[in-house]
Formats: sequence, C-alpha cells, structure tokens
Amino acid sequence: MKVSELGEFGLIDLLAKMAVAENEQLIIGIGDDAAAWQGDASIQLATVDSFIQDVHFPAGIASWPELGWKALAVNLSDIAAMGGTPRYALVSLALPPETEVDDVTTLYTGMLELARQHGVTIAGGDISNAPMVIINVTVLGNSPKKQILTRSSAKPGELIAVTGHLGAAAAGLEMLTKKLKFNPKATARFRQAFFKPTPRIAEGQLLLEQGVKTAIDISDGLLADLNQIGKASKVGAKVEADRVPVEPLVKAAFGDKALELALTGGEDYELLFTASSVVIDKVKKAASCPVTVIGEIIAGKGVTVVDRQGNPLDMGKTGWEHFTSR
Amino acid sequence: MKVSELGEFGLIDLLAKMAVAENEQLIIGIGDDAAAWQGDASIQLATVDSFIQDVHFPAGIASWPELGWKALAVNLSDIAAMGGTPRYALVSLALPPETEVDDVTTLYTGMLELARQHGVTIAGGDISNAPMVIINVTVLGNSPKKQILTRSSAKPGELIAVTGHLGAAAAGLEMLTKKLKFNPKATARFRQAFFKPTPRIAEGQLLLEQGVKTAIDISDGLLADLNQIGKASKVGAKVEADRVPVEPLVKAAFGDKALELALTGGEDYELLFTASSVVIDKVKKAASCPVTVIGEIIAGKGVTVVDRQGNPLDMGKTGWEHFTSR
Repeated sequence: MKVSELGEFGLIDLLAKMAVAENEQLIIGIGDDAAAWQGDASIQLATVDSFIQDVHFPAGIASWPELGWKALAVNLSDIAAMGGTPRYALVSLALPPETEVDDVTTLYTGMLELARQHGVTIAGGDISNAPMVIINVTVLGNSPKKQILTRSSAKPGELIAVTGHLGAAAAGLEMLTKKLKFNPKATARFRQAFFKPTPRIAEGQLLLEQGVKTAIDISDGLLADLNQIGKASKVGAKVEADRVPVEPLVKAAFGDKALELALTGGEDYELLFTASSVVIDKVKKAASCPVTVIGEIIAGKGVTVVDRQGNPLDMGKTGWEHFTSR
Repeated sequence: MKVSELGEFGLIDLLAKMAVAENEQLIIGIGDDAAAWQGDASIQLATVDSFIQDVHFPAGIASWPELGWKALAVNLSDIAAMGGTPRYALVSLALPPETEVDDVTTLYTGMLELARQHGVTIAGGDISNAPMVIINVTVLGNSPKKQILTRSSAKPGELIAVTGHLGAAAAGLEMLTKKLKFNPKATARFRQAFFKPTPRIAEGQLLLEQGVKTAIDISDGLLADLNQIGKASKVGAKVEADRVPVEPLVKAAFGDKALELALTGGEDYELLFTASSVVIDKVKKAASCPVTVIGEIIAGKGVTVVDRQGNPLDMGKTGWEHFTSR
C-alpha cells in the first residue's frame, strides 16, 4: 500500500502504535498537538512542523520575513493548544545554494520578531543544502500548571467553541494562488491571516486556568480538527453552520463560499475547544478575543454540520490531509 | 551574496549573532553540538538534524531501516558530544505520496531499534508530503551532572584524543557511490559504519565524569570538527598524522588514501576531545573503546597536520561543509 492510499492520519496512527513506549514519564505521545512528558518540576512540551516550499507555501509568493514568522507561528500554536508556554526553538534550514544570504537573514528577522513577542529563544538548529527551501522548526515549552489541554477528553453534552474568526487564512491562500483582487483592507487581512497568524498562547493558558480540558488548534480545518478531537475522545460532534464565526471580510469577498473556507480551509490557528456551558461562560468573560459556541459534542462518531432547521449539510471534503488531493 | 559564497559555517555564525537572546537560563545557543539550557533540576539538551535524500544519503542505496537508524543516530551523537543522556525524539517525515507504507514502517523499525537501545522515546513529530524523502529528527535530553561538554573550553597544552577508529564511514560512502568491491568483512564494516554508526553516549558521559570539558562528535570530518573546537576556543591544533587511528580495514582497502578518509571523510560519529594527559589517562583506563591521543592544542589558530618528522602535510579540503563542493 502506498502512503497516498493510507493517508496522513492513517500513517500517523500506524506509526504511533509502533512507537508505543514503556515510559512512565510520557504523558502524551504521537497524535496530539505536541508531545508532553513529566519534567523535573513541570510538564515539558515539544512540537515540530515542517514547512516545505510548494507543499506548505507557494514558491515566490511569501516574503522571507513572512516565511520565518509562519514557520515558527504554527509551532507556537501547537504549544498554545496544550495550554503551555513556549520557551525555546530549534530551526533547521535546508536551502538551495543560490539562495541570497540577505533572504535568509530576513527570514530570521521575521522569526525573531514573533519569537521575541513570546519570550522564545532560538537556541539551535542546523543548516544544509537542498533543491528547495525546507524550514523545520521545533519548539520546546512547558506547563507549570501540572495540567495540559489534550484532544482526548471531550465528553458528550459539552459545548464546542472557537476563538476569533475563521476563513481568512484560506481566503489568503485562494487570493494568492488564484491572483484574486480585493479591496486593500481585505487584501491585507487575508495575506496577514495566511502568512502571519497569531498563535493563541495567552488564550490557551486561559482555557486551562478556567477549567477547559480539551483543545486543538485549527491547522487542517475546523471540521478536520474537530474530527481529530472526536476520534481521540471517541465521541461525535454537531456543528451549527450559522453559528460559525466566519470572518466578515471573507463573507463580503467570497459570499456563499465563505462558510466552506471557514469550515474546511484551515490554517487560521484559532483554538477549538470543548467544555461545559459554565466553563465556556467563564472563558468568554476572561478572554480578550471573541469566543463563539458553534455546536456540541454528542455520543457516537463523526462530525455533522447542520443548518438552522437542524438538517445536515454535506460539506464534501472536510479539511487538509497530506498525500490526498485537497 | 549567495549562501554558496558565505558557506554553511559563515551562515551559522551570522544567524547566531542575530539570535542572541537575553535569556539567563540559556547555557549554549546556536553553534555547538546541541543547545543547552538550565531546566528545573538538570541541564536540558536539544538538537536537530535534517536528513535529505540525495543530499545526506544517496537515493536507492540505503535500506529503510538503515535510514531510520542513521537519522536518529546523528542526533544521539550530538547529545553524546555534550556528555548528556538522550530522552525523547520527535520525528518529522516528508515523503513522496508514492512511498510504500511498508517502507515507512521499516524506517521506523530501524529508528526504534536504536531508540530502545538507549531508552529514547519517540514522542511525536509530523508527517507531510514532499518530492523527496526528508527526515528531520529532534532529540531532547539532559545532563543531571550540572555540567556539559562544549566546544569552547580547549586550552593550549591540552592533548587531543579521539574514541574508536576513523575512516570507515567515508570508506562506506566511497564504496556505495563508486560501486567499489571489497571482501565481505570490509564491505559489511564500511556499510555499517556509514549507515548504522554507534553514537558514543556512554563514552560522552564518561568523558564528563573523568573531568573532560571539551568535545565534539566527528560528523564533518576530524580536521573540520577540530577546527570548530579551535574556532570556538580561540586556539590552534596540531595533529600527528601517524597517530590517527585509521580503521585497519580502511588501510587495507584504500592504502595511501586511508589517511585522507580518516582525517576529512567525516560521519564516523566518534568523539574528539581535549584534556590534560592526566585526565586522558583516566579516560583510557575507564573506557571500553580505544582512546587515542593524536595531537595537541596550541596557541594561535587553525589545524596543522604534521608527519613523523614534524613537517606540515597539506590535506587540501578539510571536511564537509554544506553549500560548497566536497
């Protein structure tokens, strides 16, 4: 069987089973946003993401500082989804030999801008040559609270909520790859959403403080990531399409397609979480960003999207998976 | 300027200067074998290495278990060179969609074989698609001794020593890429040396216990890596060619070229270290592998290789550097 037939998630499941280890310190192994283990005095978190030219970003469209920002941001977002604090980053760069040194330093400038905003130290990495740009960032963090957010603790009856607005990153990718034209405000918002997402680090910590146990960051798409929570927690989920906080500029620019971008586009790096209504009310009061309830966890499995009348909507493909066509 | 003009090491120096951070916990940032920072109760170590098809390994020659072993081994070797204990690994895989799932699982089998020998847990990673195989492994470890081996503490008058024998990995690469034929014993040894190096973890810890302060693992080549110690410690080094422990099978197979393979070939993953003769004698007594004195640290800079009469030998290019031709 080829990996294109098994798919990214099938392959992860298979490798996770192989790598099962007898390690009493290990709290979360393969299959969550980040790995977690018991450190000397706090829970240690570690995550890695590859960022490969023409796979994760279109060549020649991103500026180098944007690439640096995003390659780090997606990892900080994984730490945010555990409720942790990012501390250190290792940056592995593979570059074509004809790359300009100035481009590499401005890539670092973009990465360092975000790193410094969050007190993250770039402590190491490696450099090699390659036929295309490959950026691989590892982020180490911790959670002094002795608790973390996981994907596997959702329970039927809990509400599903999301931070911020959705769809702008997917709108950015559509705009850039299809060369769509919008007004300056929308153009700037979509580009920023795709290349310079804001990892929700403070919000992840706030969720943990307020008693939330289950969260994931939206990287593959709201429905695909909700499905990850469902699979890990052995529950189903029902999302009310009308309640999904679609970014208003996306609605204005994309009309009927906006909902699809918000549900399946991915890369918004907002936090998707589940909790009781009491806990979610506390989160709403404490959070400095919008927090919107979009549905509920139910017994069973799979993610259903329903319209105002409760009728299921067919969303087709639910999100990004490597090795399968989008 | 292009990165091919600045070179790998120049680029690392440049980025290290940019990434300088005000972080009192950081002990070693960019530029040593691994990053190190003060954890809650021990020094934390972290290292990452990319392993890219046709750059780090020739396509179609390595078996998948060998690839898995080596991608992890080079990182464990970096932890060994700090005197630390490796604990966790994150594995980032990028694969062409037509890759066979069985190949990926046997890659994991090779990696897990080595991981389990050293009590290392594969705790996470990520998977994506790419036009060629890219394996990126991060290893986290620690040093409970509150001390680590670094590159920057060598002093004039110290002796230079190396574990094991050198040249077999470079012999393996020559054999595989040039399709050279040797007897079965040499063939097996050269292939194993190139694809399944043994990280010197116990030896790294032993060096630290016996009072060694300066070490590096031989990845780019003895002379290139010794030059890294020299640069970091602001000292020079003199190596006596006759004392270099060239692998006997390499001598037998390559004759006069064997010394060059041992000095500049790299990828042997032996430990190169400096210390007083008293400390090195203690290391020799305690070590279960050969430990050979090959020269001494001197004031000044650069690495000189001398023959039996003390006359300098010109070794040409001293080792592997990315972006420059070998």
